[in-house]
This record gives sequence, structure tokens and C-alpha cells, in this order.
Amino acid sequence: MMHVTPSLQAGEKHVIVIGGGFAGLNAAKELARHREVRVTLIDQRNHHLFQPLLYQVATAGLRPSDIAVPIRAQFTGNPNVSVHLAQVRQVGLKERWVEVGDDNGSFARVGYDYLVIACGAQHSYFGRNDWEPHAPGLKTLEQATEIRRRILSAFESAENEFDPERQRALLNFVVVGGGPTGVELAGAIADIARTVLVKDFRRINPSSARVVLVEAGPRLLPAFSEELSLRATKDLTELGVEVRTSARVTGVDAEGIQLGEERVLARSVFWGAGVEAAKLTRMVGAELDRAGRVKVSEDLSIPGFPEAFVVGDAAHIDIGGQVVPGLAPAAIQTGRCAARNIVASISGRQRTAFRYRDKGTMATIGKHRAIAQTGALRLTGFMAWVAWLFIHVLYLIDFKNRVTVFLEWTWSYLFAKRGARLITQRDWRLDTEALKPNGGAASSPSGDRAMAANG
Amino acid sequence: MMHVTPSLQAGEKHVIVIGGGFAGLNAAKELARHREVRVTLIDQRNHHLFQPLLYQVATAGLRPSDIAVPIRAQFTGNPNVSVHLAQVRQVGLKERWVEVGDDNGSFARVGYDYLVIACGAQHSYFGRNDWEPHAPGLKTLEQATEIRRRILSAFESAENEFDPERQRALLNFVVVGGGPTGVELAGAIADIARTVLVKDFRRINPSSARVVLVEAGPRLLPAFSEELSLRATKDLTELGVEVRTSARVTGVDAEGIQLGEERVLARSVFWGAGVEAAKLTRMVGAELDRAGRVKVSEDLSIPGFPEAFVVGDAAHIDIGGQVVPGLAPAAIQTGRCAARNIVASISGRQRTAFRYRDKGTMATIGKHRAIAQTGALRLTGFMAWVAWLFIHVLYLIDFKNRVTVFLEWTWSYLFAKRGARLITQRDWRLDTEALKPNGGAASSPSGDRAMAANG
Repeated sequence: MMHVTPSLQAGEKHVIVIGGGFAGLNAAKELARHREVRVTLIDQRNHHLFQPLLYQVATAGLRPSDIAVPIRAQFTGNPNVSVHLAQVRQVGLKERWVEVGDDNGSFARVGYDYLVIACGAQHSYFGRNDWEPHAPGLKTLEQATEIRRRILSAFESAENEFDPERQRALLNFVVVGGGPTGVELAGAIADIARTVLVKDFRRINPSSARVVLVEAGPRLLPAFSEELSLRATKDLTELGVEVRTSARVTGVDAEGIQLGEERVLARSVFWGAGVEAAKLTRMVGAELDRAGRVKVSEDLSIPGFPEAFVVGDAAHIDIGGQVVPGLAPAAIQTGRCAARNIVASISGRQRTAFRYRDKGTMATIGKHRAIAQTGALRLTGFMAWVAWLFIHVLYLIDFKNRVTVFLEWTWSYLFAKRGARLITQRDWRLDTEALKPNGGAASSPSGDRAMAANG
Repeated sequence: MMHVTPSLQAGEKHVIVIGGGFAGLNAAKELARHREVRVTLIDQRNHHLFQPLLYQVATAGLRPSDIAVPIRAQFTGNPNVSVHLAQVRQVGLKERWVEVGDDNGSFARVGYDYLVIACGAQHSYFGRNDWEPHAPGLKTLEQATEIRRRILSAFESAENEFDPERQRALLNFVVVGGGPTGVELAGAIADIARTVLVKDFRRINPSSARVVLVEAGPRLLPAFSEELSLRATKDLTELGVEVRTSARVTGVDAEGIQLGEERVLARSVFWGAGVEAAKLTRMVGAELDRAGRVKVSEDLSIPGFPEAFVVGDAAHIDIGGQVVPGLAPAAIQTGRCAARNIVASISGRQRTAFRYRDKGTMATIGKHRAIAQTGALRLTGFMAWVAWLFIHVLYLIDFKNRVTVFLEWTWSYLFAKRGARLITQRDWRLDTEALKPNGGAASSPSGDRAMAANG
């Protein structure tokens, strides 16, 4: 194993940042302004992702590149920042190293003076990871294009299907989890079925698709006021979404889900229920909460390791009994705070405790509606949607993405079309195989199930 | 096996079109105008692809959805056209049926009155299909994003690599085949390395990337005049592409290629050498040429089967000893001709022989140059590139794609940035696995190979 330490100038300090999400990227940007700091940013993806709009990629409203920018390109003008596409395999808090490797087989231990862990969160299946292949979550671009593939393919397969029961199951969509991800995804699926696809099929009526949103708790969107939560339920119902609260999923398989005694047949099930910190936090050896998040001190460092910080969704930050929520603005604030505390320590100044400025929270429901809540202010309907739209366009990191997303939305608003109705991501090597007899089918076709002709 | 015939009105005829490329789509559009025709269009992808710009997706200049549109959406206003996402498994020319299946297991035999086979072409490895995983071709969106992934990942891995020889091999790119695809791909790789990526890395200099274009024949672009071919070679050389003519590839593996005695180490090899008709033509039982194309009569039907046509790249069309080339304008013309001949037969009129209107041919070289040849007219350099640009924007099928491609190119021209530098298509299920120790690496890491720190 090769041990690597960057060749530093006198007085320079080396900071490793793990993760290029909202928290890590903002920590690195803050640090980049200081010449005495050398930053190594490590991520297992080459892109920073604007996660709040991921559901729009999953429902063909936006293209992957609209909401993702190369992390590397964010630091073109910062020679003191080095970006690496690699996986972190281990962290040695006591010895101050990070063990990294890449797909190419290269790996090494890299030493640091300061560490910022911003590895983010992933979906939690509450110990039932076997459900994941049947009910993918929505945290990465690959998951978004996989969900897009499943949604569009379901309509395509239904158009080919003669068996009424199988056709019905293909047009049933279940979204598990009544938080913002689940609400936005369910609303967007209902919208695409009823407006975008409606004239494009001959044998099926896409608007007959059934969209079921399942929430274990007594109401949707528990982070919002009860009034807004009720409004969201009403708006979703008007869009044709079946909202099922106090309904606990007890089983998921290829054919549908189990809600206690009740069976819901659905070929497409998507997961937005639980969230836990990325696995990396388990390797750190620090105290974790039940969601696997590292319990950090008020300066965001790990207790006992003042040079190591955890920020964003991977951190459990308790301010007077209130836990900071897993939202983009919170991640940005924690990243910047950790960076400023590192700079303070290097310059011999006092660190400051993290203070959370609550910027409110919002969620879209279908195409023209949203709910928003910030302090005492509550917005619903079209006005909330306009506010949502402008805030999301403004927060996109790249000017060009702001332009393209704005154009894409204008287009979709005017013409009810979607720019990215592509089914891709099948293994590219299939191309030469697919036309061989029986070469392309994943499952073995049986007897009288049929492919439709015209009429 | 279910046998299906569409329920036709008196006098209606059922036409099956296999393939939604330039030829098939234009055949179906021509047929759609006639009320007495019911069209079933079958494709194994849900999108029509503007193949001439595929190399730009492969080099991060355009996004997949810029050059692909849902086939289904092209027929929203044509209730007599039914689109099916399915694979054709067999064709019964004598009994007039097509056997189709989909991923969902549905399959059936569908009867027809007329058939249009427009299944297109794929890359040929001259009997060495084992080379394909090491040297993917460029015919589908999945292949384009796979090539994009390999190009961008090669620079990422090189940035992590300490072994100079391995680093060198990562920065070597080989393109096999000196036709338009190879020339455009090689030029675009050289361009992205020297202009787009150049300031974004710290340990490597992307502009030191070596791009080798290998052609077995004595000169590049044999379809063009010798003068234009020389000009293309000169322009490519100025871009930093090493042009190797009269060089035959005798081996391809994970580490590079073999040119007779000479070994060229390269982790990225791309294939644009041979083209053959899609496998479907082998099932038809008609006479084929060496490239697997069906030899058709002058009305584009299969000899002995006047109701079955083959068009586009799958057809071998000999007009007085001249074979119609595999170009988009030719595919469009053949598709329309077959459709018109079908309508003629239905209305009891005489069929017409196919006549090829040569619209010329063009190829871009890097960012601001091209060569074009049409009749006696020859264009080179910037003027040819401007002509290329306008023709390609105009021919894009969808108005919206014209707008977005034009904006994307303007942006890239002004700022030397690329809109789609995304590495995706890793298995999405990896997400939860990648952070486990040794969970993410495809190859087993060995001893002292190293991952770079900053500096």
C-alpha cells in the first residue's frame, strides 16, 4: 500500500473533503479561497448533482445534464484544489489518513491535516435490502434514469399486452413514502400519464394509469404544517393520485407490494421512504444516531477529533434538542461552517458553533402547484409553484443549467411535452444480440401472451 | 403462439414497418398520410436517433436527448399508425407474418399485407466479435454514452495514477477506421483534450493525450475526392491526431491494439471500421451481399416477394453498377420510395424504380473545420463547417431539438465548454455497495499502484 502526502509549501495545510454534494462542494469552495490550504476533493462520481430536481429526471421532464455538473469544472480557477474520482474505502481518524481506490485498480492512503466527511445519505429499506431491486430509490442520476426507464417501459409493455390483468399491473404505479420525494414523484407520474403520453398510444389509455402513494404515518409531508399537508393530499387526489396514509408496506416483490393483508399489484414500485447516512459513517468509529449519522460537536467536528468534521446529511447536528433537517440549504450551511472553522484553526482564531438559518421548505405537486412554508409564511397552489420554480432555477449551480432548465420548463408548460422520454441504459452489448431469435428477452416468453398488432 | 391480425375496415391494408431509423420513420410517415393504410411500426428502441451527430454525444458535446426523439411522439396525430417497442424475432416471407416479442415476455405472430424492413446496420468486426468489448462501436445512444464514459474515465484514472507507463496508456486513444465516424470521433477527442479539459486537472496535462486514427486503406475518407481526403489528414494532424493509413489492426485487447508487428498501448479503443446489415436480414432467406444487405429489385422489393421491401442501410441497391451509399439522405429516399410503391400497388397504379438523388457528403474535423463534397462542389475549412452546421441543425427532426442543439453549439463555441461531461451508466445498484471495502473496484488492486493526493 502506497502512502501519499502531498508536497506542501511551508505553512500549507492539507484538507481532504469526501463528497461533492451540497455540503462537500461548498466546504471545498470556501476552503479554495485560502491560499494556505490545499484541498483534495474525493467523490465516487464525476458530477455534483442538484438532488431536489432529480424526480424531474426520473419523470422525463429534465435531462440528466440539466441538473448535474462536473465537480472538476467547479474548480478550474482554483489550482489549490485537486479533484479525484475514487472511492473512499477506509478512514483512519487516529492516524489521519483516508484510504482510496478507483476502478482502474489504483489505491493508496492519503494523509491529511483536516478532514471533512460529506458522504451524504442513501435510501434505507429498514433492513429489507432485498426490496431494492423491485423498488429503486431516487438519490443518483443512474437511479433516476432507471426509474424513467421503468415508467416509460411499463406503458410500452402495456401497449403490447393482451392479458387484461397483466396489462392492469403494468399501468399500476406505487410510490412508497409520503415525504417530498414521494409526493413529487407520484404527482409527476400522474401528470405524465394524463397530459404528456395521453395521445401517443393506440391500445391503452395512459390516463387510466393508477398511481398509489403509500405513507406509513398518519399524514403526508410531516415536516410541513397540518394545513399544508392536507392541501397537498387534496391536490394530489385531484391529479388522480390515490393517497394511502397509515399504510405500512410489509412486502415488495416483482409483482407488487403487500400492505398488511392487502395486495397491490404493480409492476413499477419506487422507494422514497427512509433515509440513512452513507455507509462510510460506519467505518469512522464515531458515535452514530439510528439513521447512521455521526453525532458531531457544535463546531461540526467529531468529538475527540477536532481536525475531523462531518457535514450535510451524514451529520447528526443537535441544536438545543432540535436536529438540523436533511435539506440542501442546511447542507450548504454546514459545509461552509466546517470550512470556516478549519481556516480559523489554521489562523489561530476561535472556532464558531454552527447556527442553522431555516430557509423553509417546499414541495411541488404535479405540474402547476406546490406548497411552501418558511417561518410564519405559508404558500399553496400556483403562487407556491412559481416561488418554487424561481428558487430552484436560481439555486442551480451553473448559469448554463439555469438557462436550459428554464427553457425546458417553459417549453413543457406551453406544449405539455417532455424533453427526455428516452429509454436507455440497457446493456449496450445487447445491440448485436437483440435480433437473434430469443436473444433479447430477459424472461422466457410463454404460450399465449401476446404482442399487439394495430387495432 | 398467438396469431394476430389487426381488425381492418373493408379495403384497408396492413403494413408492418420494422425499424424507426431514417428509412423506417420516413416510410411510416409517408404511409400515414393514406387513410386506407394501417401501419404497425416496430422498433427495439423507443427513440428515433439522429445518427450523424452521435459522435458528439460520445464526446460530451451534445446530450442524448438532443439527438433522439420518441418514435411514438412522431405519430401523435396519426391514429392509423401504431408504434410498438419490441424485438422482431423471425420473419415469415411466404406466410406473411412477423414474429415479435418484448422484454415483458409478450410475443405473437403478426400478419401483414405489406412489409418494410428497415432494420439498419451495425458495426462489423470482420469475424472478431471478441474485440467488441475492448473497442465499442458507435451506432446507438448506449454505445455513445459508454464511449463518453470511457473517454472521461480515462482522464480521471490517469489523474489518480502514479505509474508513468499505466498513466501513458490511459491517455492514449485509438480510433479504428478512417471513414466519417472515425475521423469525426478522433477529431472530437483531440479537441476535448486540448480545449475543454485542459485546465481542469492538476497532475496530468490532458492536452498531452495521444489520439491515433488507424485506417487499413491507403487514405482517409475514401468516399471523398483525394484532394479533400488529403485536406482532412492535414487538418487532423494540426489538431494533434496521429493518422496511420495502410495500417491493419491484427489484434485488440484490454491493453491496446496490435498493428502487425507494432504494439500500441491504449486503454481506450473505439471502432468505426466496418459496417454490416443488422442480423435480421439473415433470417429473411433472401440473397445477401457480403455485408449482409438484402439485394433488392429496382422497386426496392425482395425478388419474388413484391409485397416485401428492404430499405435504408439494410438494402443493397444497385443502380447501373453503382451501389447506393449508406447515408441518411439515401435512407430517407428509399423509405419514401417503398412507401409510395406500396400506395401505388394498393391503388392499382404502376410502381416506380428507385432513383437516388445524391445530396453529397460531409464530415467535420475537430471544432471549426469540415470537408464537404456535392457534385462538382468542394468545400473545406471553416466555410464547410458552417455549411455542415446549418444542414445538420435543419435536418434534426424536432423543432425543439433544433433550438437546443443550436444553443448548445453556440455555447460551446463561445466558452469552449461541454454540456454533458457526465460519467454515468455504472450499475445503479453499485451505489450502496461502492463504499464497502473493496466493494467498488472491478479489477483487484495490487501492491504499489497508487491514487494521487494533491501535488
